[in-house]
Amino acid sequence: MKLKVKKINFETGNTKDVVINKKDALQLGQKAGERVYIKNIEAKSLENKYWVAIIQIDYSNSIVKQGEIGIFIDILQEKKELVEGATISVKPADPPDSFRFIKKKIQGKKLSSEEINSIISDAVSGSLSKIELAAFITGVSINGMDNEEMTALTLAEVRSGDMFYFGMDVFDKHSTGGVPGNKVSLIIVPIIAASGLIIPKSSTRAITSPSGTADSMETLAPVSFTSEKLKEMVSKHKSCIIWGGALNTSPADNILIEIERPLHMDPIGLMIPSILTKKLSLGVKKLVLDIPVGEGTKFPTPDAGKQFAYTFKEIAKNVGIEAECALTLAHQPIGHAIGPALEAKEALTLLMDYSAGPNSLIEKSTELAGILLEMGGKAQKGKGQILAKELLKSGKAYKKMQQIIQAQGGDPEIKPQDIKLGPYMKEFFTIKEGHITEVNNAIINQIAKAAGCPHSKSSGVEIFKKQGARIKQGDLIFRIYSDSESRLKKAEKIYNSTGGPIILGGMMIERI
Amino acid sequence: MKLKVKKINFETGNTKDVVINKKDALQLGQKAGERVYIKNIEAKSLENKYWVAIIQIDYSNSIVKQGEIGIFIDILQEKKELVEGATISVKPADPPDSFRFIKKKIQGKKLSSEEINSIISDAVSGSLSKIELAAFITGVSINGMDNEEMTALTLAEVRSGDMFYFGMDVFDKHSTGGVPGNKVSLIIVPIIAASGLIIPKSSTRAITSPSGTADSMETLAPVSFTSEKLKEMVSKHKSCIIWGGALNTSPADNILIEIERPLHMDPIGLMIPSILTKKLSLGVKKLVLDIPVGEGTKFPTPDAGKQFAYTFKEIAKNVGIEAECALTLAHQPIGHAIGPALEAKEALTLLMDYSAGPNSLIEKSTELAGILLEMGGKAQKGKGQILAKELLKSGKAYKKMQQIIQAQGGDPEIKPQDIKLGPYMKEFFTIKEGHITEVNNAIINQIAKAAGCPHSKSSGVEIFKKQGARIKQGDLIFRIYSDSESRLKKAEKIYNSTGGPIILGGMMIERI
Repeated sequence: MKLKVKKINFETGNTKDVVINKKDALQLGQKAGERVYIKNIEAKSLENKYWVAIIQIDYSNSIVKQGEIGIFIDILQEKKELVEGATISVKPADPPDSFRFIKKKIQGKKLSSEEINSIISDAVSGSLSKIELAAFITGVSINGMDNEEMTALTLAEVRSGDMFYFGMDVFDKHSTGGVPGNKVSLIIVPIIAASGLIIPKSSTRAITSPSGTADSMETLAPVSFTSEKLKEMVSKHKSCIIWGGALNTSPADNILIEIERPLHMDPIGLMIPSILTKKLSLGVKKLVLDIPVGEGTKFPTPDAGKQFAYTFKEIAKNVGIEAECALTLAHQPIGHAIGPALEAKEALTLLMDYSAGPNSLIEKSTELAGILLEMGGKAQKGKGQILAKELLKSGKAYKKMQQIIQAQGGDPEIKPQDIKLGPYMKEFFTIKEGHITEVNNAIINQIAKAAGCPHSKSSGVEIFKKQGARIKQGDLIFRIYSDSESRLKKAEKIYNSTGGPIILGGMMIERI
Repeated sequence: MKLKVKKINFETGNTKDVVINKKDALQLGQKAGERVYIKNIEAKSLENKYWVAIIQIDYSNSIVKQGEIGIFIDILQEKKELVEGATISVKPADPPDSFRFIKKKIQGKKLSSEEINSIISDAVSGSLSKIELAAFITGVSINGMDNEEMTALTLAEVRSGDMFYFGMDVFDKHSTGGVPGNKVSLIIVPIIAASGLIIPKSSTRAITSPSGTADSMETLAPVSFTSEKLKEMVSKHKSCIIWGGALNTSPADNILIEIERPLHMDPIGLMIPSILTKKLSLGVKKLVLDIPVGEGTKFPTPDAGKQFAYTFKEIAKNVGIEAECALTLAHQPIGHAIGPALEAKEALTLLMDYSAGPNSLIEKSTELAGILLEMGGKAQKGKGQILAKELLKSGKAYKKMQQIIQAQGGDPEIKPQDIKLGPYMKEFFTIKEGHITEVNNAIINQIAKAAGCPHSKSSGVEIFKKQGARIKQGDLIFRIYSDSESRLKKAEKIYNSTGGPIILGGMMIERI
């Protein structure tokens, strides 16, 4: 069939989609989501070959008339021979081989490295449609991936994008997430860099939580950099704390995440390759993985976390990364602050003054940093945390953090009180005495997000008393900050309707 | 967030999609495929309520600028309050409950009727996105549906669309497909209607095969009708042979099929409800189901077919349909003709002259018709086929077919030689003698489709000798018709490169 190119002034991100009229689709015998070969039969350039497009159908007959083929501007920019009005030959095409491999996974079979490579390279080129990728992700969610498959997937994803080389021994820390206020990276990175080890920390923005490391760091300095600038910063300062999203590391992983997210799926078969790909792309050789376990995390029980840790370590080893995993408590926030600016403020306060605490942040940060220091030969086995605490106490970590902030374009002299909060604020006091038996993370997250997190960096919550604390009537226990009065009201309403995140009990355990 | 409506002059068929700028998406914290509540905050009409839309993101910043919300014309036509330039309030929304039920199926759990109803009603309203439906279909493919779930799904799908009532006892025939040249409906429907039973045959066009019943019938008479015309025809003539696609029976099933097709999935958990929904919508009470078994069909072994038959009968009974199933041979085509016009011609020839055969078409059609005649009390148990053959031989079935053709707007005096074939044609002759040990259906389908089937109705193939036939050198064994010289060449090439669909052997079985 011959069709004339019609430009559609709209960028889809789906670089293989074209639009044809419903009558032409009927004649081709292809339905929406099926494929066609297309080629400009007039152009003489050597690059002018048949390529495969996925069809959308204009049921309304309003944009793409019979005899036309609608091509989106992102494709027109890429395929120079497809000028408006050009005559295009169109014929039905079968799905790519990779689609057969997706079906194989759905049938519960194991995929070979070649098959996984094929799926990943077609995902990146746009040759697999979103619904085909959704089927793949669902298939992996149900049938899983074994260690060989996860290893192959990691390597395939790494190959899909840019890679960096910062030296023989590059360190990193990662968390599987799920605990509020987990600003430990802002403490660990400067400690490790202060010890002389290389740690190019590329982090994410919050997806479902009130703040990600990149969100918090952004209240201290810019976090979005080109590859060149990243190389320069790491070679000068051995470290950085940046947002990974601006780099072109593992586009394949990003494409899968774009479908996983609306499906609320994060199967282990994809999660492990996703973590390791980002690390491998940045040349990481030694990694400590923080695995929070318990309600609200990805691992409801310590056993589930432990099982994951063993699998993770093995896949990491297969791809050349030495990984140590730490199962950590997740029953209440780390420190007191939740939200981008509040977390940065709490971290900066601790970096400047060890005695300010909070204890849970010191302990978790130095435990994880200690593992890295031991892996890097900076401390003997069992002595890493002591060294980490020294680097923190002595102000060396703070000095490193100032260098990082300056290198990224922030003010190295920034003080905790300079960090903008609110400006709307509401405090909550206890109305009776007792001791705190439980802190509810889900309610904390809900309130923080209602207040504006993570998009509003100055919004967030502070929790002043945690599990085990004794409180008396009138104690300040909770504070909400928001950038908008109406959002503050909404957050307040959640606090009042749920009774807040703190559960009080008397001291009696049982009456017999 | 407040955004201004911008009209996008493009109909998507996804009635819940809206487009926002990437910056606004970031601020809302919603990614592509996630949801927002939207409402015109200026309009005062009572119908002006918050409704949920699924967002697409304009990454190019070219159509939908920051501060705008792109609304497709199909939504603008439906939601009168969304005029261009209106100010819209937009806020993040969670997925509907039905999405939780999809996840439940993916986790391998059983769904309740309420949960299935919720999925189906959200699929029809456009509240579930294509990737969510792809996840559902993949989940059903892997985890299956039990009989209660299939029953509930059938009833939910029926409720999604129009229903017809043609009387207390309405009959029908259906095939699970996979055997070429299966034009039996064109024989069975007039036989059953000639006996006095009601049979409103709604059929499909070919999807992956060279011809569907609707395609063949369309070479004799129009097949696309409104509900009113259908009611009129059935009340006058007790029958019809139409294309079901023009009716609004079970839009839910059509929506699922739109995703199943590009995924090449047709799980039993959806297939049985799909068949039964279409029948139930047309008020069918008694059904004979033709289940071809063997290579190339949905059931590779008779056992697989039998198992399916038992399940089918039970679900049918649950929804008030009495079903009889017939496992049938599928090792070679039914009759000699494959392709819309050729099949209509073969059927019309038999209806006009019983002695013309072919035998396989007579036997299969009258066996299946016989079962319906017995179910309808027109023949005693075991005597149905005899009556079916009488109705065919006596010309009563032909007379009924003439009435059907006339009622649908065709020429009742049409003769086999009036049916247009080709005009390009190529014949193939044997080059050695022997007997035919095998006929390869897949090669026949491939040749017929290369020649232009099903879109080109005059294209197709004829096979003159089938399994067990003895042939001598120079016998005509195969003929290809095509509407285009180049397509004929392509079909010819497949014949030559595969050696054709017929496999010859000597008479010797074993040499010892």
